[in-house]
Amino acid sequence: MTKNFENYVLPTYARQNINFVAGKNAVLIDSEGKEYIDFAAGIAVCSVGHANERLTKAICDQVSKVIHVSNLYYIEPQAECARRIVEMSGYDMKCFFGNSGAEANEGAIKIARKYGEVDGQPKRYKIITLDHSFHGRTITALKATGQESMHNYFGPFPDGFVYAKNIDEIESLIDEHTVAVMIELVQGEGGVQPQDRAKVQALSAMLKSRDVLLMVDEVQTGIYRTGEFLASNLYGIEPDVITLAKGLGGGVPIGVVMTGKKDIFSPGDHGSTFGGNYLSTAAANEVLDILEEMKESGALDEHLLYFETSLAKFAKAHPAIFLEHVGLGMMRGLRVVDGDTLGKIINAAREAGVIVLKAGRNTLRFLPPLTITKSDIDEGFARLEKAMAAL
Amino acid sequence: MTKNFENYVLPTYARQNINFVAGKNAVLIDSEGKEYIDFAAGIAVCSVGHANERLTKAICDQVSKVIHVSNLYYIEPQAECARRIVEMSGYDMKCFFGNSGAEANEGAIKIARKYGEVDGQPKRYKIITLDHSFHGRTITALKATGQESMHNYFGPFPDGFVYAKNIDEIESLIDEHTVAVMIELVQGEGGVQPQDRAKVQALSAMLKSRDVLLMVDEVQTGIYRTGEFLASNLYGIEPDVITLAKGLGGGVPIGVVMTGKKDIFSPGDHGSTFGGNYLSTAAANEVLDILEEMKESGALDEHLLYFETSLAKFAKAHPAIFLEHVGLGMMRGLRVVDGDTLGKIINAAREAGVIVLKAGRNTLRFLPPLTITKSDIDEGFARLEKAMAAL
Repeated sequence: MTKNFENYVLPTYARQNINFVAGKNAVLIDSEGKEYIDFAAGIAVCSVGHANERLTKAICDQVSKVIHVSNLYYIEPQAECARRIVEMSGYDMKCFFGNSGAEANEGAIKIARKYGEVDGQPKRYKIITLDHSFHGRTITALKATGQESMHNYFGPFPDGFVYAKNIDEIESLIDEHTVAVMIELVQGEGGVQPQDRAKVQALSAMLKSRDVLLMVDEVQTGIYRTGEFLASNLYGIEPDVITLAKGLGGGVPIGVVMTGKKDIFSPGDHGSTFGGNYLSTAAANEVLDILEEMKESGALDEHLLYFETSLAKFAKAHPAIFLEHVGLGMMRGLRVVDGDTLGKIINAAREAGVIVLKAGRNTLRFLPPLTITKSDIDEGFARLEKAMAAL
Repeated sequence: MTKNFENYVLPTYARQNINFVAGKNAVLIDSEGKEYIDFAAGIAVCSVGHANERLTKAICDQVSKVIHVSNLYYIEPQAECARRIVEMSGYDMKCFFGNSGAEANEGAIKIARKYGEVDGQPKRYKIITLDHSFHGRTITALKATGQESMHNYFGPFPDGFVYAKNIDEIESLIDEHTVAVMIELVQGEGGVQPQDRAKVQALSAMLKSRDVLLMVDEVQTGIYRTGEFLASNLYGIEPDVITLAKGLGGGVPIGVVMTGKKDIFSPGDHGSTFGGNYLSTAAANEVLDILEEMKESGALDEHLLYFETSLAKFAKAHPAIFLEHVGLGMMRGLRVVDGDTLGKIINAAREAGVIVLKAGRNTLRFLPPLTITKSDIDEGFARLEKAMAAL
């Protein structure tokens, strides 16, 4: 298989040499029968774990009936998915369905730009984003990403993006052309550092007073990843635009942009061939059912707390290596003493049978399935201890 | 359900009021039990029809094992899918997997831009596209689309796109900054008009001689839609970059960009969370199996010919209404006397139980499942005759 990768797949990823062939909730099994505890969940995608029976059944039931028609017709699970997302969010919004986080963020940027054009005198188009942010891999989403290294090779990029060092700096960057601010409440790729709640609330109030849209990229933080349905709920804010993707489909490609500017688009302004089709929205509806039940029963909060406590204990046992414990809910990071050690830990963990991730320069990142059991959490940290001993 | 659409879904489509609940190959069934012959296939997506048993089984088998991990690891069906696509294409290329046609075209544009940057003195970045083209809904893909009406609201758009009226005009637009030409061989949205084979071959030779990349958007024409695996095969050309999407996953969101510039990307240059995951590539592999078998057995060519003959007969029976018969393979159009009549035909067809599409201003468009049976072709055209009688 690695030969097929070498011969036929463009080398855009630094892949680790594992071939997963099956899974069960938070356990992955490779082609040699070795079992891993998965603390990564496909980068927060497998929100209900691997081979979830309810999700599998929902997908099989749907594709055995109808998998896709175009958006020229009504699609019942799409309507249901939109209703569920809006009601679970508590925000008075409408949804558009695409196929990825990048597409969702493209939709957000389009909403902002149209809002600035039809509404503004003078015309407004600038969008402020944060340093160390990550908003996706399309050319415009790359330019929205506040990482200088992402702005090579693929230009000319579209103008109109302005980068703030942090939330404090945003206000000073607003000018008569500014139409929106786009932020992650916890920067997934940028080091799993949550924004300060009071500062986010003050930002939200300030932007409202100046009619600048607050757009929250919840591609990674959404769908209960931080403990609430949306991180925006946890922060007690009401954004104008929210984007969702990773955890929503449980592994089926899907992206959503939702906004309270319900009349911003007219027919023809935006579209997607696959977006919101029977497959992706039937899967999303089952994921939402599973996670909402877990939340309402108290099981989700219990798991979150158990994971956090276990992680804190693990970090505390290695004070010379882990400098800080950051994150929210099931989106956690440990700041490692240096990047070199971080790389060694990830490799040793894999050897010991546990999958963990890297974020930023020196953050060990944890994004387990939200359905992970306490015993798998225990087993995962026991294996991490073995990995630390083997360093 | 329509109430849920009104309340919760952004109004970006002019939807027809049908609620499909099931299907079987080229037949769709709505919530009232009415059956339709589907001559649209979700806009060329349902290449192997609705509820295809083999595709359903492949999807269920895969999701019951593992649906998704990240591209930080090897993914066996992704490697297999890349190998299949490359070998079936006959081109010496490598693949990158995303989630849609728009994402595939973003990948193509990134390849061209990087090729122009690393290779060129002076720096080359301009991409020539054609009037009436359609390349997708991201901000950069919209700008690549040669339709003035697509360039509203969402600016600033990225610079560097130049529009040619037709293939003849391309050479005169090339300057020292031109790095690529991107075309569809049959413009799907632009009126289903195939490009002239000799002109395309001459274009290909001319571009090669000037080291300008030829990028072919096969999002709609690819995966046997025109009768060959790729329309590029049918045209006898060797493009530098090819994009695929709609028919590849049989309804599962997927997009591919493939290129002979195999070293263009380094790790970190491009990426996708969902792209190429177990679900989408396992589905694609089954679609490729089904269609390759049909092609090799001669059944595909037989169906294509039968559809074309039936369509020609239908058009000929209404010479005052259908002015011209255009297209290739199972991607066909009838030029209708005026747009008003076209709208009436589509509505009357729906009433009579057959789903057809519009393209451009006045083209009646046909994109049936490639697996459609002769009896369903017969039934579809019989119903279209009824629709014409009811006009």
